[in-house]
Amino acid sequence: MSKNLIQPRTLKGFRDFLPEMMLPREQLIDTCKQVYRSFGFAPIETPTLEYFEILAGKGSEETDRQMYHFQDSGERHVGMRFDLTVPLARFVSQHSQALGMPFKRYHIATVWRGESPQAGRFREFMQCDFDTIGTTSLTADIETGLVIVELLIAIGVGGFQVRINNRKVLNGLLDKSGLAEHATSVLRVIDKLPKIGPARVSEELKSTCTANDQQIASILEFANITGTNQEILITLDRLVAGNELGELGCSELRTLVETYDSLGLPSEQIQIDPSIARGLDYYTGTIFESFLTAIPKIGSVCSGGRYDNLADLFTKEKLPGIGASLGLDRLLAAMEQLGQLPKTKTPAAVMIANFDANSQTVYLELARKLRQKRINVELYPEPKKLGIQFKHADRRGMEAVIVAGPDDVAKRVVQVKWLASGEQSEVSLDASASLLASELSSKLQIRLG
Amino acid sequence: MSKNLIQPRTLKGFRDFLPEMMLPREQLIDTCKQVYRSFGFAPIETPTLEYFEILAGKGSEETDRQMYHFQDSGERHVGMRFDLTVPLARFVSQHSQALGMPFKRYHIATVWRGESPQAGRFREFMQCDFDTIGTTSLTADIETGLVIVELLIAIGVGGFQVRINNRKVLNGLLDKSGLAEHATSVLRVIDKLPKIGPARVSEELKSTCTANDQQIASILEFANITGTNQEILITLDRLVAGNELGELGCSELRTLVETYDSLGLPSEQIQIDPSIARGLDYYTGTIFESFLTAIPKIGSVCSGGRYDNLADLFTKEKLPGIGASLGLDRLLAAMEQLGQLPKTKTPAAVMIANFDANSQTVYLELARKLRQKRINVELYPEPKKLGIQFKHADRRGMEAVIVAGPDDVAKRVVQVKWLASGEQSEVSLDASASLLASELSSKLQIRLG
Repeated sequence: MSKNLIQPRTLKGFRDFLPEMMLPREQLIDTCKQVYRSFGFAPIETPTLEYFEILAGKGSEETDRQMYHFQDSGERHVGMRFDLTVPLARFVSQHSQALGMPFKRYHIATVWRGESPQAGRFREFMQCDFDTIGTTSLTADIETGLVIVELLIAIGVGGFQVRINNRKVLNGLLDKSGLAEHATSVLRVIDKLPKIGPARVSEELKSTCTANDQQIASILEFANITGTNQEILITLDRLVAGNELGELGCSELRTLVETYDSLGLPSEQIQIDPSIARGLDYYTGTIFESFLTAIPKIGSVCSGGRYDNLADLFTKEKLPGIGASLGLDRLLAAMEQLGQLPKTKTPAAVMIANFDANSQTVYLELARKLRQKRINVELYPEPKKLGIQFKHADRRGMEAVIVAGPDDVAKRVVQVKWLASGEQSEVSLDASASLLASELSSKLQIRLG
Repeated sequence: MSKNLIQPRTLKGFRDFLPEMMLPREQLIDTCKQVYRSFGFAPIETPTLEYFEILAGKGSEETDRQMYHFQDSGERHVGMRFDLTVPLARFVSQHSQALGMPFKRYHIATVWRGESPQAGRFREFMQCDFDTIGTTSLTADIETGLVIVELLIAIGVGGFQVRINNRKVLNGLLDKSGLAEHATSVLRVIDKLPKIGPARVSEELKSTCTANDQQIASILEFANITGTNQEILITLDRLVAGNELGELGCSELRTLVETYDSLGLPSEQIQIDPSIARGLDYYTGTIFESFLTAIPKIGSVCSGGRYDNLADLFTKEKLPGIGASLGLDRLLAAMEQLGQLPKTKTPAAVMIANFDANSQTVYLELARKLRQKRINVELYPEPKKLGIQFKHADRRGMEAVIVAGPDDVAKRVVQVKWLASGEQSEVSLDASASLLASELSSKLQIRLG
């Protein structure tokens, strides 16, 4: 049997998640769901595989090239989804009668892209999208920002800043400056500003967009604006003055920041940032990015924006909307770098040691009582040496081990040992579940505080 | 743009899940996780795609034939996982040092099989596995049954029965009767007993296994045993008497049912059933199936058993274990047939109507207060006609709609309308969140009770 062993290995760019990585992932996903649901977003799921024609040509050239696709056994050309937006467009087109508009959905699921594997790039990763479809109301834009804020607060990742922009402002400015036809190039160049600086940006604007000095000045002024939201709005007003689209964008931006202000959001959490662009063509109005104060360099952890039409390739129905997506892997990487991830390898807070082969029923009963008190508990399955059992609990980051030998069982007591402090105490078997429940809640609170 | 629309459609055997189906699915999955975690099972995740050689030849001929597999862009032959057991074997072999034994994991994830689509058969479905690996201790067997019991109680699907068998009993009996070499055929024939009856089973045993009358009699007696667990054990003891393996199997079965009895499990929840076999070769000890009292015909909703060696194709390390899997789709189908699935299409209990374009901040603030009271709330995004908004809330199965027109806002009151009863009352804006929270908890309790 074991002569020709198959080497256990995973494909490049694909990952196994061991419990210590999976526990914080599940917690993050649960937090996402809870926050999305609290705003009335409903869950959906779509197939991993779609007809190739559904997926092809919907993202960028890059997503087409990176897509996993093949002939299935029925000779159908199928592809694995590379994002959750194209499946959403197909889904909403197919079920729009049953769904009704406006439709708020979240979709937390895996997607695949055959990227060149490199640091932080995976071929299989999870997206956590939420979208409000079928409305152009700015209230939906405002709520999208609120979801991002509530989500980052709920995750508890520390300070953060949600940066807001509006594509109408930039498009208005380009229109006013006579650069509308070069919009895509200008966006590309603006994106490089933090890296290459204003001098080289000027050069590139001149060479790629044949921009004149006045045009360059207004673009650089736009992309470099700093100050309070009110200060930025005054400058933007001046830059787009006389252009209808630009003025509408400014007015939308103003409504957003003023509403957040009225709702009492700390001003440092919401910042207008004219330099963020987010995709070259897709977004048409409000744009969001969000950065962690402690580690801004990791990039935006939750991003999104407004689009005019979700599904024009599938339906004549016009479906405007707004949505955003949490970058789960990036956020987990940040939390790991910040030392915010617990080292536990098990959801069990307590282990019951298996001391005495004849006391299995006592242990099983105690485990049951602990679970009734909502304590997750692992009963070590066999009466091995206690040292091995303690090591097992310790390596997994459990809080406490309960030991009950035959003498203890006869006296109806148990020994409780707290692993972090080494404290040990004898507790009545019958009261132990309640005692542990209250001890654990206070200990875990200390740890959290 | 819309001249050549792509028809939005899904592949045969694949499904979209709309919110009304997805909400109970997510609830069921959450319940699974909670129960698995309460026993100390830790979550893991593995890639969807594996090297073909990892997956091929590990299940049956059928799973090989049904597997989705293809060449990726790097010319690697890859396959989509068809179950969670083969990936577990690969995973544990690869990471056994980091994991340590015993290792308790759950894995709730999607798998793919190119089955012929027919009623209740899908090409993409979810498995909810839990396993305890690295121990032969019967305590792990006992706990596996307890997980199934606690899970079915937590799901709240009504009465159920966990049926237990032990492959050692049957193997011992076959050994004793001199039919050991025909074990696979005998198992196949026994499986047909409920359908074709004892006369035809006798014929088939005679023709396929050349069994004589005495052998047939003992097999039929075995497969037909009924009675209390104690009565069944007495008969089994007699049938296998003198065969070591069979006697061990009986003793294990006895330990299980006696322990469940000591733990106070209702006797109708645990039933020895010598007719269940579960797989022809894989399982080697305890076997579990479980049936719903209201709808037993749908088949076992949670099944599993003990195996001697999980991963002998990947590692020389011997990894015995025991596990089981909840049949999510089957259980949901049962719950739907039993009318146990709610008809709600949203997680939001309450909708705030959007009455007055100038009161957006008031609505947003109220929504926020409701969420702080843990009420999921949807703010209708734009001030459309109230009739349209009420229909929106009603179609989605929300509990209540809050309306606040300009006069209400001026008086700082809101109108709360309960959709099921039509009751309506005026409530202070400031107190409304607390009032709704307590009203909702009592209303939902009434609905649950």
